[in-house]
Amino acid sequence: MSINIAATNHQVRLARRPSGMPARADWAFTAEPVAAPAAGGVLVKTLDLSLDPAMRGWMNEGKSYIAPVGIDEVMRAGGIGVVVASEHSAFSAGQYVSGALGVQEYANFPADQIARGALVPIDLALGTRLQWLNVLGMPGMTAYFGLMDVGEPKAGETVVVSGAAGAVGQTVGQLAKIKGCRVVGIAGGAAKCEWVVRELGFDACIDYKAGAVKDGLKQHCPKGVDIYFDNVGGEILDAVLTRINRKARIVICGAISQYNNTEAVKGPANYLSLLVNRAKMEGIVVFDNTARFPLAIAEMAGYLKAGTMKSREDVVRGLDTFPESLLKLFRGENFGKLVLQVAEG
Amino acid sequence: MSINIAATNHQVRLARRPSGMPARADWAFTAEPVAAPAAGGVLVKTLDLSLDPAMRGWMNEGKSYIAPVGIDEVMRAGGIGVVVASEHSAFSAGQYVSGALGVQEYANFPADQIARGALVPIDLALGTRLQWLNVLGMPGMTAYFGLMDVGEPKAGETVVVSGAAGAVGQTVGQLAKIKGCRVVGIAGGAAKCEWVVRELGFDACIDYKAGAVKDGLKQHCPKGVDIYFDNVGGEILDAVLTRINRKARIVICGAISQYNNTEAVKGPANYLSLLVNRAKMEGIVVFDNTARFPLAIAEMAGYLKAGTMKSREDVVRGLDTFPESLLKLFRGENFGKLVLQVAEG
Repeated sequence: MSINIAATNHQVRLARRPSGMPARADWAFTAEPVAAPAAGGVLVKTLDLSLDPAMRGWMNEGKSYIAPVGIDEVMRAGGIGVVVASEHSAFSAGQYVSGALGVQEYANFPADQIARGALVPIDLALGTRLQWLNVLGMPGMTAYFGLMDVGEPKAGETVVVSGAAGAVGQTVGQLAKIKGCRVVGIAGGAAKCEWVVRELGFDACIDYKAGAVKDGLKQHCPKGVDIYFDNVGGEILDAVLTRINRKARIVICGAISQYNNTEAVKGPANYLSLLVNRAKMEGIVVFDNTARFPLAIAEMAGYLKAGTMKSREDVVRGLDTFPESLLKLFRGENFGKLVLQVAEG
Repeated sequence: MSINIAATNHQVRLARRPSGMPARADWAFTAEPVAAPAAGGVLVKTLDLSLDPAMRGWMNEGKSYIAPVGIDEVMRAGGIGVVVASEHSAFSAGQYVSGALGVQEYANFPADQIARGALVPIDLALGTRLQWLNVLGMPGMTAYFGLMDVGEPKAGETVVVSGAAGAVGQTVGQLAKIKGCRVVGIAGGAAKCEWVVRELGFDACIDYKAGAVKDGLKQHCPKGVDIYFDNVGGEILDAVLTRINRKARIVICGAISQYNNTEAVKGPANYLSLLVNRAKMEGIVVFDNTARFPLAIAEMAGYLKAGTMKSREDVVRGLDTFPESLLKLFRGENFGKLVLQVAEG
């Protein structure tokens, strides 16, 4: 398989650091010729890009778990692509790969990046391309290591997960069910709540748009909350803190309610419940566990095959729609893992 | 040794639940005749009472790690006393004991409470009576189990402790030094700061009244913060959160800055630093470790004997002064462990 080197690579670059919700004017749309891979390099054509809440953090200046995206740089994004030209012995044209492709149509990986593991072949026998961005990808790994390492679920315990219909939340809940827990989701809207209960088998789901989360927790967690997997922060975190059990574990995975704040983040006013209940709150970053991904992927692929784990993706199309598509996450409009299809495979 | 049964027991009772700082009008001063102990019981004369920040929480209604003090009940307080009459084979008149004596001159312990371990003989060969309320008592045990179990100090790590000149803080810092850590205190005022550095051997102390805690942390924790033992909450907790290292441990022991709030507690706005740094924040309650107290006391008594651990108490006198004496804690006026001497031993 060879590439028409005359092809154009359309890109979305960060033009300026957004204040609050990112606007179209925060992005620059550029085009440049596609270059052939250098010696030892690989050229990948982007098929599907993962749109993630964490992207909002990457747009901000300042120290975080990963360097911010620079101004005028192609926006960082993980994705699935197909090798169109390879000068590397481990990759060949036509092969499907996963990596930080960026929000662009083609990505060139030089030899040194490949040596650091930047490009990983994916096995479509374990799951579909979309599943490789969801249950078998970063959201699934985040769910797996956050729940297992920090949450340490025991059969019979009650697990609450916010963003329950989102990419990480859906997998946290299903995995906790597989581990024998009572699982209560928190999501926005009746449709999402119905889906996580009917389709994913959660025991209950609290619609935070329909009433007080505190009341829902009282009703659906009669034995209190042993593990809370937090994707949203803000008032929902505070509500759950009032219902935790002794020695509860709170996994801090994200805080989507706070990412577009222009004022200070709202800290959890009820954090002293940690003291009263000798409980802990611990942050996780999925990249710490890359060495253990293969084992976790194998376990999750087994659940997919067995049908005990379902994977839902919300696919939007077209590189040009990136600025608006990303906002679906912060408006709670996505239903399952949000994926931007850039090209058909 | 026998007691003059005609003696009067003066008591301080909770008259109403305070709003904000407890006022004298929140207390009732009562007197009743001292009763002889019932069969199997012990009558104790109060000598020294421990005044603790946690007392403020016990005055509030609502679920906590311990039931609130009821209206018109004698205020709960731990203390050291001397047995004046005993109908229990394990106790005899003249013996020094530790227990929840309450803010009163005499306390009668019935047999069932004694069976549950409510009264413990103290060994004055291990430490003085005041030390038994400090390093060998609840503050010392809180410091020990909070630092060792949640903090898990490793030699060379940087430990920060707030309320550094207080009962818990002074012991946390000295114990962390013994374990080979760099120790930085946070306290209010030059005198306290100088004392924890010169007398207790802390590496540095930040005077939060003299400047920004954040700047002090930058200066004195050049390698960041591995363990933060928090006794104060509020803005100091938020400042430390900006300086924690990867895998840092934050011990939530108290939040004295927030106990008298009439508005909502200020949650730690920078809590997402836990995520960025894969760090944890965990609450502790000393009463969970009572079975392990004897071993910890033996270890701490060894440090006292060796002179590697110092114990400072701030002794105020007179049961009647209880309402005002307690407020010294919340105004940061105490220097070392605050003890109310009710009678001379």
